[in-house]
Amino acid sequence: MFKSLSCLRLVRPTVRYASTEAMAPSWPRKIFSGVQPTGALHIGNYLGAIKRWVDLQNSGEDVTYCIVDLHSITLPQDPDLLRHNSLQMAATLLACGIDPAKSTLFLQSGVPQHAELSWILGCMTTMARLTHLPQYKEKSAKLKEIPLGLYIYPVLQAADIMLYKATHVPVGEDQVQHLQLAQSLARAFNNRFGPTFPFCNPIISDDTSCRLKSLRDPTKKMSKSDPDPKSCIMLTDKADVIREKIRKSVTDFTSEVTFEPETRPGVANLLTIHSLASGKSPQQICAEAKGLNTGQYKGLVADALVAHLEPIRSDIDRYLADPGYLATVIEEGCERARETAERTLHEVKEKVGMNGFSLARLSEVARKERVE
Amino acid sequence: MFKSLSCLRLVRPTVRYASTEAMAPSWPRKIFSGVQPTGALHIGNYLGAIKRWVDLQNSGEDVTYCIVDLHSITLPQDPDLLRHNSLQMAATLLACGIDPAKSTLFLQSGVPQHAELSWILGCMTTMARLTHLPQYKEKSAKLKEIPLGLYIYPVLQAADIMLYKATHVPVGEDQVQHLQLAQSLARAFNNRFGPTFPFCNPIISDDTSCRLKSLRDPTKKMSKSDPDPKSCIMLTDKADVIREKIRKSVTDFTSEVTFEPETRPGVANLLTIHSLASGKSPQQICAEAKGLNTGQYKGLVADALVAHLEPIRSDIDRYLADPGYLATVIEEGCERARETAERTLHEVKEKVGMNGFSLARLSEVARKERVE
Repeated sequence: MFKSLSCLRLVRPTVRYASTEAMAPSWPRKIFSGVQPTGALHIGNYLGAIKRWVDLQNSGEDVTYCIVDLHSITLPQDPDLLRHNSLQMAATLLACGIDPAKSTLFLQSGVPQHAELSWILGCMTTMARLTHLPQYKEKSAKLKEIPLGLYIYPVLQAADIMLYKATHVPVGEDQVQHLQLAQSLARAFNNRFGPTFPFCNPIISDDTSCRLKSLRDPTKKMSKSDPDPKSCIMLTDKADVIREKIRKSVTDFTSEVTFEPETRPGVANLLTIHSLASGKSPQQICAEAKGLNTGQYKGLVADALVAHLEPIRSDIDRYLADPGYLATVIEEGCERARETAERTLHEVKEKVGMNGFSLARLSEVARKERVE
Repeated sequence: MFKSLSCLRLVRPTVRYASTEAMAPSWPRKIFSGVQPTGALHIGNYLGAIKRWVDLQNSGEDVTYCIVDLHSITLPQDPDLLRHNSLQMAATLLACGIDPAKSTLFLQSGVPQHAELSWILGCMTTMARLTHLPQYKEKSAKLKEIPLGLYIYPVLQAADIMLYKATHVPVGEDQVQHLQLAQSLARAFNNRFGPTFPFCNPIISDDTSCRLKSLRDPTKKMSKSDPDPKSCIMLTDKADVIREKIRKSVTDFTSEVTFEPETRPGVANLLTIHSLASGKSPQQICAEAKGLNTGQYKGLVADALVAHLEPIRSDIDRYLADPGYLATVIEEGCERARETAERTLHEVKEKVGMNGFSLARLSEVARKERVE
């Protein structure tokens, strides 16, 4: 869902605050994002999204990251694969640097409040609002029978964000309109029931260079679903596989190493990968690669990438060999998430009027105290 | 939702069992139904539905009854009213004879598994399936902006039933097609993941005489939303109000008391009310009323109705004066419901593949036991 994020750009809200929002408490800065348990990630997912999550975590932000398995089932899933992919995603996130001591990392289906708030928000959404979302239009156009999940999942996404009162949400550009649904649901709820939810700001990429391209066709995005496995480097690829894929990557007939994304997308793509893996700018790398031809330069890229990815790959294996540890991390994360989520849901139910019996219980307690 | 049920008729399923169902365990007979917290009930709701719930309970059936507040919010609700109506519905059900020692009586929003299973089932439903449900067509036709809740609530209704593995569901005839959605979702789930849910049979009325008519216009159904309050007797009406409404009820210009629903709907309606309140057949009552004119007969109807309703009315007041007791009953009911619901949801999540981390935890425990 949120996984197609890339580099960071904080988008300032351009809407005006409604009067209730102006009176609202100043919300503490909280970051939430989610990733579907799709199994192994490629370096585009990692460099463009997960690495940013880790950076946000390490800069001391209050971060909550969710493996969104309820979103995964909006299209048919093989149960064994879903189980495996959930474990693999947890292992991958830890290997990439998500630290359970600093981040709340949890599994969506382990926190019932997501589905509960989603129901309540669904009753505040109109069908027209969902029908007009471009991702729904695009995905449903290809299907003969449209599963309901595909239509209503932006509401669950809004619930995901709002349960934690997130103020900032790293998302891919394709998710910005879903975030706008969350924004308008928060606004509608606040207007009707008083200040309850903060405005949630997207953190999206503005650096197009972060969007990695296919190694076999640099005019296309790098994608796991590309039929040519050489087009894409997975975090689980071993060093020799990485070297082979970089060596076979499509560049052009110019020998020099220059950063010209428009005219030389293949070489620019390698420079981008190299830059993200090494922390050096493409310009700095070009300077260092002076005198090398692109064939020789590929060796440098492969070295940098292997150096960066090898510890991650071996950590993924290490975590996957210890599923009991993964279970502990996720269970503890779920417990922490449930605490926050329950606090929010309790507040929502009170405001909506679902707390008649709790109030009755309170009045009973008060009555007994008076009697005693 | 399920509240517009009237007399009992067990509808035998006409569909053939799929092969997995033929292999399925023989499911214990379990009855589930729900009622929206709409506040006070009229005698049509009571005599046609709630009295049947009580009869099922008292005949020793395994019964679970739910106040479905999550369904209430599919259209906008005033929070104070929803709180009040929830308490009033609990008081009414108890006053009508629902016994918490024999029935599981609970509040839907107090059992998170309803929303959770609803999400999972929603991912197995197609949009076309919901769009074709006649109640959605009818209700949405009147609205400019259709709330999502109106569209997806039959899925929540299916979850309500399936969570308790109900085999029999008292419903109104207008709900039969929603029950068919639950049946087809159960079948689809069983076919894909193995026997999990029983076939749920509707228990609907076949006795048209049970459908009470407006006291002011016996060609119309008795309805709380009728602008003329004299058209309808509420369970909360006091004796003098009941007598006045019966006295002013529209009959015809024939003096004799006869049961002819087609030609004399007003008198037949009074006889039906009298019959349901007294347990005597309309024919027996006609024999007893020989020699009385309809004006005099109205006195008998009022006597019988007041005798039947007065204890209920005073019990509603008694329960409403003790909201702490209502809270205890509902809390205990929720606890019992949650136990069953959690068992079902756990089984569903396992089958769908959401238990990767639980399995990991189990393997960890097994490993530790081997080591120790």
